[in-house]
Amino acid sequence: MERKEISKSVLKRLPGYLAYLKSIPEGGSSYISATTLANALGMGEVQVRKDLAMVCDGGRPKLGYPRAVLIDDIEQFLGYDNTTDAVLIGAGKLGQALLGYGGFEAYGLNILAAFDVAPAAESEGGKPIYHISQLESFCRTHKVLMGIITVPAEHAQSVCDQLISCGIKAIWTFATTHLEVPSNILVQHENMATSLAVLSMHLQAQIKEKK
Amino acid sequence: MERKEISKSVLKRLPGYLAYLKSIPEGGSSYISATTLANALGMGEVQVRKDLAMVCDGGRPKLGYPRAVLIDDIEQFLGYDNTTDAVLIGAGKLGQALLGYGGFEAYGLNILAAFDVAPAAESEGGKPIYHISQLESFCRTHKVLMGIITVPAEHAQSVCDQLISCGIKAIWTFATTHLEVPSNILVQHENMATSLAVLSMHLQAQIKEKK
Repeated sequence: MERKEISKSVLKRLPGYLAYLKSIPEGGSSYISATTLANALGMGEVQVRKDLAMVCDGGRPKLGYPRAVLIDDIEQFLGYDNTTDAVLIGAGKLGQALLGYGGFEAYGLNILAAFDVAPAAESEGGKPIYHISQLESFCRTHKVLMGIITVPAEHAQSVCDQLISCGIKAIWTFATTHLEVPSNILVQHENMATSLAVLSMHLQAQIKEKK
Repeated sequence: MERKEISKSVLKRLPGYLAYLKSIPEGGSSYISATTLANALGMGEVQVRKDLAMVCDGGRPKLGYPRAVLIDDIEQFLGYDNTTDAVLIGAGKLGQALLGYGGFEAYGLNILAAFDVAPAAESEGGKPIYHISQLESFCRTHKVLMGIITVPAEHAQSVCDQLISCGIKAIWTFATTHLEVPSNILVQHENMATSLAVLSMHLQAQIKEKK
């Protein structure tokens, strides 16, 4: 179907639908309605109906969506069928953990190599780790468009600038710091420290209540 | 200082301030103003001023905040000085990566052990991995209040229910699915799949533009 403009909030809900659709055992009904999905996920029916209409043409009155088609359409929409090559900068503990994590392939992400100022020979997962000086030639040769930043906050901006000068257009950063980028570059922050702070504040409030 | 009610959006900015404050080399000025901080991070001065006033009493006219005091206050606010014990459920690739990642300690998170339906003896990082049947006694003995979910989406809700029945009050989930919880339980989603989808859509749009 024609790709529509879609908001980030819709995008955030799609992986949830996908996970539920894939969790339905084989042999069940091959159709699923927005109502069923909404009830299963505890969401509003109108919202689910609208979201699905954004990504899939195949809905049929009374029947709903053919499940297999809906799964394909959501995956295509999320770019999971479209492998994106990426480089990772900063082969410290977090960088190594991401490098060794095989689960990103299901989301269409393929980390080709890591770069560091003090590179080890190879990560535990078998991906190569090169010296940062080789970044530009690697990115140009492999036409890499995505960079993942896992360096300490104080080095994140200079790494970010370096990535952009190597032709990177999308940056996924785990550093807890603001990054300045030109308007054609997209930065996505993965702020685990914030998540932990939110959880920790909730626990402190609960403990206080008990006293 | 008296703990004020604070919004999630303020909370999201605090780790950024903290990272910048810590990145200033020793020997520089021991005071920092909201203006300096705002300029350095490319943020609005009014916002930075308000945020800092929420967490720190020590601001002085013309001088700004004593940097060391500000760092301490933000860390205390974010609960980094308050170690939180947690259990992790699902010792697959992501679970093992988180278990082996030492960096969470800086944020006050201490993962005591992992639980799985098919536990290996021990993770690479040396943390124990137990059978899920031992979860309740472990949580009660160690008075654990936080649970981390890294099981596949289709098992996330049942794991979540199990955690709550073991006395867990705060849940950090990496599963891409909605979780139903009572109102006194806080769930924080870490949706890496969404981040990747947002980045992938941006790249697709950029490639399309070029054509």
